[in-house]
Formats: sequence, C-alpha cells, structure tokens
Amino acid sequence: MNIPDDPFFTMLARSLRSRDGETLQRSLYVTLKEAIMQGQLQAQSWLPGSRVMAQRLSISRNTVNAALEQLAMEGYLRRDRRGSRVTALPQSYSRDCSTVNVSASLSPRLQALPPVLPRDTPPLLFAPGTPAINYFPLPLWRRLLDNVLREEGSSVLGYGDSAGEWPLRVAIARHLALSRGINCDARQIVITEGALEGVNLCTQLLSVPGQTAWVEEPGYFGAKSAFISAGLKLEGVPVDEEGMKINRDLPAPTLIFTSPSHQYPTGSVLSAARRLALLEYARQNGAWIVEDDYDSEFRFSGEPIPAMRGMVDNAPVVYLGTFSKTLFPSLRIGFMVLPPALVESAQPAIRALLRGGHRAEQRALARFIEEGHYARHLAAMRRLYRKRQAQLHEALEQELTVEHSVMAGEGGLHLTVAIEGIDDVELVRQARQHQLAPSALSTFYLNPQHALSGLVLGYGNTSASQFATAIRALQRLIAQHRCG
Amino acid sequence: MNIPDDPFFTMLARSLRSRDGETLQRSLYVTLKEAIMQGQLQAQSWLPGSRVMAQRLSISRNTVNAALEQLAMEGYLRRDRRGSRVTALPQSYSRDCSTVNVSASLSPRLQALPPVLPRDTPPLLFAPGTPAINYFPLPLWRRLLDNVLREEGSSVLGYGDSAGEWPLRVAIARHLALSRGINCDARQIVITEGALEGVNLCTQLLSVPGQTAWVEEPGYFGAKSAFISAGLKLEGVPVDEEGMKINRDLPAPTLIFTSPSHQYPTGSVLSAARRLALLEYARQNGAWIVEDDYDSEFRFSGEPIPAMRGMVDNAPVVYLGTFSKTLFPSLRIGFMVLPPALVESAQPAIRALLRGGHRAEQRALARFIEEGHYARHLAAMRRLYRKRQAQLHEALEQELTVEHSVMAGEGGLHLTVAIEGIDDVELVRQARQHQLAPSALSTFYLNPQHALSGLVLGYGNTSASQFATAIRALQRLIAQHRCG
Repeated sequence: MNIPDDPFFTMLARSLRSRDGETLQRSLYVTLKEAIMQGQLQAQSWLPGSRVMAQRLSISRNTVNAALEQLAMEGYLRRDRRGSRVTALPQSYSRDCSTVNVSASLSPRLQALPPVLPRDTPPLLFAPGTPAINYFPLPLWRRLLDNVLREEGSSVLGYGDSAGEWPLRVAIARHLALSRGINCDARQIVITEGALEGVNLCTQLLSVPGQTAWVEEPGYFGAKSAFISAGLKLEGVPVDEEGMKINRDLPAPTLIFTSPSHQYPTGSVLSAARRLALLEYARQNGAWIVEDDYDSEFRFSGEPIPAMRGMVDNAPVVYLGTFSKTLFPSLRIGFMVLPPALVESAQPAIRALLRGGHRAEQRALARFIEEGHYARHLAAMRRLYRKRQAQLHEALEQELTVEHSVMAGEGGLHLTVAIEGIDDVELVRQARQHQLAPSALSTFYLNPQHALSGLVLGYGNTSASQFATAIRALQRLIAQHRCG
Repeated sequence: MNIPDDPFFTMLARSLRSRDGETLQRSLYVTLKEAIMQGQLQAQSWLPGSRVMAQRLSISRNTVNAALEQLAMEGYLRRDRRGSRVTALPQSYSRDCSTVNVSASLSPRLQALPPVLPRDTPPLLFAPGTPAINYFPLPLWRRLLDNVLREEGSSVLGYGDSAGEWPLRVAIARHLALSRGINCDARQIVITEGALEGVNLCTQLLSVPGQTAWVEEPGYFGAKSAFISAGLKLEGVPVDEEGMKINRDLPAPTLIFTSPSHQYPTGSVLSAARRLALLEYARQNGAWIVEDDYDSEFRFSGEPIPAMRGMVDNAPVVYLGTFSKTLFPSLRIGFMVLPPALVESAQPAIRALLRGGHRAEQRALARFIEEGHYARHLAAMRRLYRKRQAQLHEALEQELTVEHSVMAGEGGLHLTVAIEGIDDVELVRQARQHQLAPSALSTFYLNPQHALSGLVLGYGNTSASQFATAIRALQRLIAQHRCG
C-alpha cells in the first residue's frame, strides 16, 4: 500500500493498517465515521471522489463506495452527483452521559414495592410456592410437547390468539366445571403468564392510577407489586380466621384482591357470610373482586372450597388460576375467568395488550389435561402434600421448642408459624446460609405495626426427611435472635 | 331409605333421592347449603345431632359428619360440643349482579388504545411482522429443547432468575457484540416476554402516570398501547426520511420511543445528526430513550445500522430486542439491555415485577445461539427476505397501477406503500375476505389529520409466487374504494 502524501490519506492509511482484524470496507467506514464524529473531517467539507480514494489507498473502488454508502445511509455523509459531503452533526453534545442522575429518574413508586429476595436455583428448603417439581411426570411432558411440535409443525410458530390457544381454554373450562364447581364458557378464559399477568390485566381493564385496591393484610406480595406499579393506592384489610373483613371506614376500592379458598399466608377460608357481604359490597360500590385461587386444588380435608364467583349469578369477580403450583413454576401458564359481562368489552384491550404465544406449550398442556394426566397428577400431589404437611406438623411439635402457633393447616403447600418477639427478616436472611428459605411473616404486612412475626414454611418441594434437621437449625437461629 | 316424618327430614330425603349422580355426602352438603342460603334453615337454629340425622336418613354417621364439617369449614354452620348451628348470613344481598354497570367500570384509558385486528391462524398473506416460519429449523429446535429437558431434568421446572436464564443472557451479550456493535455485560441483559414486556418494564421503572412519552408519528401500535395503559400521555413526533425530529414545542417527555435502525412503518433510518441531538436532548432533560431494534438484523444493503446506545458512553438508552422476527413469534422471547447505571437500581423492581420462567425454552435458545445456528438462520433469512423484497417491488411496479410510493425498502420484513385518497381501514377490512392482511398505514398515526393512507405489506411469511395475484386483488379493491 502506498503511503499517501497528505494528512487525510496518511490518517486513513494508518487506520486501515491498524485495524487488520476487519474487512477493508469496515475499517474505512469506522475510520471515516470517527473522523466525522470527532470533527477531524469538518461539516460540509467534500471528501475526495471514490476513484481517487481507491487509487490513493490501493483498495478497490467498490470497497470505497460500499463504505461511503453505509455512511450516507447512517447520515454521516450526503452523496449526490457532485460527490460525498460531510453532514453537520450537533455542535456540542456530551460524549459521556454518566452525569445522568439515574436515581432521580427512577419511578418513586418503586420504593413502595415489597422487597423480594432472589429465587434460588436449585430451590432452597422451605421456599414457599414451589411444588414438588421432581414428582412432575417430565418424560410424559416431553413426549406431549414434542408431539405437538412434530404434528402441528410451523403452524404453531406464528402469532396465535392473544387470549391463548383455544384447545387449552376449552380444557380449562372443562376442568373448572368438574373440580371447582365453576360453570364457564371457554370464551371467558384468557391465558396469562402465570397469575401475575392476570392481576396486571385487571388493573389495566378495571382501574386507573390513583384509585384504591384493597388487599389482604397480611397478603400476597405479587398482587401488591402489581397494584403499586399500576399506580393504585393500597389499603390492607385485616384477615382473621374467617378471612378478610370489610371495613367501611377504608376508602372505597376499585379492586378487591382476595384468596378466599386458602388465604395466603394465613390459610383462613373466607366464610360464607363474609363472601356474600363482600360480593354485595362490590355490587353496590361498583368494585371488582379479583379472586386468586392459587392452590385450592390441594385441600386435605373434605372437598375443595368452592370458588367465590359461583355464589351469585353474574358476580363481579375475575377469577385467577395458575399452573405454577399444580404443575411447575417455570411453565408460566395461568388463566383468568372473566365474568360474562366483561367478555365482549375486554376484547379490544386483550388484543392490544396481550400477544398470546408459547403455543406449543399451551397445546401440550391442553393434551395433558384432556388425557387425564392433570387430574391424576393433582390426586398424587394432594396425597404427597397431605403427608408432608402432617410430617411438618410433627417436626414442628417435636423440634420447635420456642412458643409458636401454626396456621394455614387445611391444605396448600405451606404452613405459617407465628412466633412472637423475633426479628424474622434477619432470621430469614441468616437461614439462607443454612440453605433454608422460609419467608418472613412480617413482610406480608403493609402496616408493620400490625405485623405478626414468624415464618412461612413451604413444604411443597422439601422432602420430609429434611424437616427435623431444618427445624432444629431454625430453632437455633431463633434462640440467637430473640428481640429484646 | 325410610321416609322421615317431619318437614326437615322430608326435604332432605327428597333431595338426596333426586341427586343420585353424586355421593351421599355431597348431596347432603349441597342440600343443607342451599337450605341455609335460601333461609329455609334459619340463622342461629340448631340442626339435629349427627346420630339422629344418620338414623333418620339411613346413611352412615361418618357421611353426615363429613358434610357438616365441610359446611362448618365454609362458614355455613358453627359446630361445637352442643351441636351444629346455622350461621347468620347477610340479610339482604343480590343473588344476581347482572345490574352491575360494566362499561362504567372499564378504565377510560382503554378507549384510547389503538384498535388491533385479530391475528389469524394460519397467518394471512401480507400480515406484517410475521417471519418465514416455515423456514425455521423446527426439527433442530425440537432436538435442542428436548435435550435441555432431558439433561437438566426437573431443575429447570422451578422458579429461575427473574431476569432470565444466565446462559441465554451470556449468549445474547456475545451475539450483540458481534452483530450489533453493542458492548455489554450479560448482567445488563433482562429477558422479557417479547419486546412488549420490555416496554412495560421501562414505563414501570422510569415513569409515573401523567408523564409524557414521545412516540414516532407514524409508529408502532404496541408501544403506544403499553404507554397508554401505563397512564402516560402520548405525543407523536413526526418522522421524515431522517427519522423522528425533535420538536422542542412539545411537552418534555419522560420516555422517548424510537426504532432508529428501521423505523416502523416508514423504514427511515434515524440519521447520525438526529441521533446525537436526541441523545443530548435526553441527557439534558432527564429523559430516557427506548430503542426498539426489532428487525435490524435484516438489512439488505451494507452493514446493519449500529444501535443508538453505542454512540456515546453511558447513553440514557434502554435497548429492546426480540426473537419474534428473527426466529418465530410464538417463542415470545425478547430482551432489554439496561444501561450500566440502571443495572443495580433496577434489581428490586425486576425481582418484584418479573418471574422469569420458560427456562427450558430459554436454555434451548442459548444453545441455538452458541452453536452457531442463530447466525446461520439469520444469514439464510436475510437472503430470503432480500429476494422476496425485490420480488415484491417488482410485483408492485407491474400490478399496482394506482399512483403510489414505496417506503421502507432497505431491509426488514415489510414494505409500506403510501396511496393517496383511499379509505385504507375499509380496504384492509375487505382485503381480509381475500385472505390478505396488510395493515392500514393511517392506523399508525395518532393524529388522523397528518395521516397518510396506504398499506403496510409484510412479505416475511408470504411466498413470492403469490405476490402478483395478491397485488392485483388489492388493486381491484383500491379501484372500488377511492375516496370522493
């Protein structure tokens, strides 16, 4: 390569030589772009013609033209018959924006979000909300999923119905009728990313920022996060052994979030009288009830508690279900049952805000339900969890010598143990070092003044053989961390 | 079964006989529940003892007790040593809530959502945004997915990192460095449900309702829907051949949404001068730029346009990418690249608002990228789309006799054809009857007064052999529907 005899070509040639991992075209493009951005090539100045440049740099004219074209496309040059002219870039701009005040631009609402500890992989012992994933019939699932992909081929790769795959909606409607006493049409069912997207959709459909949502006190942090991030004001409604009790002194809500079949985390069942009162209150005040039915399939005595939405006709209730607890969490398939009155009017929003997707997984799940595997898996897990719960009760009785009371004992995947006078947040932090991940009961409360301290112990994915050792470890930590 | 001799037992016995598809326990439970709800059994009245009821109905005492227990659990009875007593339910409540005024409770913001036509399955011709799904290497994908499920087993069924699977974040960071000139760390990458969840997360992290978002005019409806549902005010910033141009008369934005590499739907490239001006404007005004890089991998002349976020250091830019266009839409995997300054501060919100999930799919995708299949598929699709686009240009030239101008011709999966004086919304509605689903250009505008009419023609999933016939059909419809 000849050394050109003026500064511009000297600079170009040096740069081309120094960038030898790249194509000549890219080297030329990058070199010219930097020269323009740094002002070495002045705005409005003309570049030499491509023929001249090619000769002086001893490279092909096509290479020069391709680089110049790219620069013109990106707006660094303007090219016309007369040649290539450097574009005027803004005179002054900051090449480093590290002065941007990030914390000032973060939404102040984020501060109100309940703190969430990272999820561990693999899950630690006692982590609430994780089912017995090693009991899931994975080989069967792999076969169903692969069958769908093989049989349906590329047709399941495109966009689907934003409300979810029709066969899954039909299968869910049928299952709900059989197992939850819910009579609904598949058109009322909207498939969501777990139950959480259902909560988000309720806020988008039925509320505007600044309105009030009632949540259970103590209650599920996921719903609170969703309401806070939607700009709603939260009011905690205290829960006792009959569930949440309407407090007419609170600001009237637009949304009422409740887990009536097995309150999370106290386990209480919303009583018939309270249910009817809540339904009537919602009707009279134009509020909507969001019924979270997250683990009602796992009831260990008697029949499952019927869903609230079936108690009166046309109840103002949006029902949320999920397969995260009954199958496995990373499936991320949940669903909502819209009341008939909302089905039509919610269509435009569902089309605008949801995208469907995960179509093969949804179709595999539809087959899993229709072929009876779902009902069988539920029955097996009900037996497993019943046994694990009894064993955890026993371990608590034998190993937890500190005074405590056990709640949430009629079903589900967790027991809640109230223990007075402990710093449960610190306890939980330290427990992680022992591979234990219970939740701190006090963090389920909005108002720290009402908060009970204690531990929420998930036994879904924890083998009973580990209970005694784990409870003893907790007992030791409690003994070290009694307040005062 | 003996007929009991008083009205209560007569009623019970009749009901038990009439419900013979059910267990006796369930029949008794349902009958008593209905009698309580309808007031036939009065509040505070005592039921006969379980021994008496069992004798009089000739059923087992265990059956009676189980039914009474269930009723007590649900709050219809209270049981103690003295017996079972009917609970007082609310005196008056509406058994039918069909009087609830649904439209009054729907969020008024929903009215502002851009109307979206349903997605068709299988996709119709010319539907924008659908890639060539029948060219996706599905057998290879099935193998990778099944390998992950087989090798990783139940460990991928639990909750994962809410920011997404680490191997996928690493693979994306590596791909971005090679193909998009983006230097970032895998910790900056957050996996999202397509690009849309990325837009939602930006609104939650960086804005509060009532603030302003700038969007391109015309522009992508998905972003507008997300901003509207988050309670932001939209300002449309007109787009010309150099992309969106800052208008300092508009209310200052909190978020600026732009598709700088290939503006949707006009196809213009945001010029270097405009990029720098926009970055500087954002820096000075504390605004954040949301860079939607939806189809920049498919550039047909020269190299892909570099991403905006690399132009200055610490740019106040959140970069959004998606695999919906490069692989297949129902995968629903997208990602955001956070600026380093946001990585730490966004953690709590990401943990509170996202759930991770779809872990096997994410890990299969990581392998797909790392093993080189992604780069190969991109190259093959770039060739296919370049050819299809050239063929569509040709078909338009030969078959579309009405005066028109073609935009967005440098890459991507669509061409935009501006045609003056047509009712494009009605045209598109009628085109569906011919199995054609272009989008109406005018619907991409916020302000109908500025709107150009025309058609956005997606060729990603439409075989070139159908172009001529399809354009002729559109030409006929246009001839029928010229305005005025």
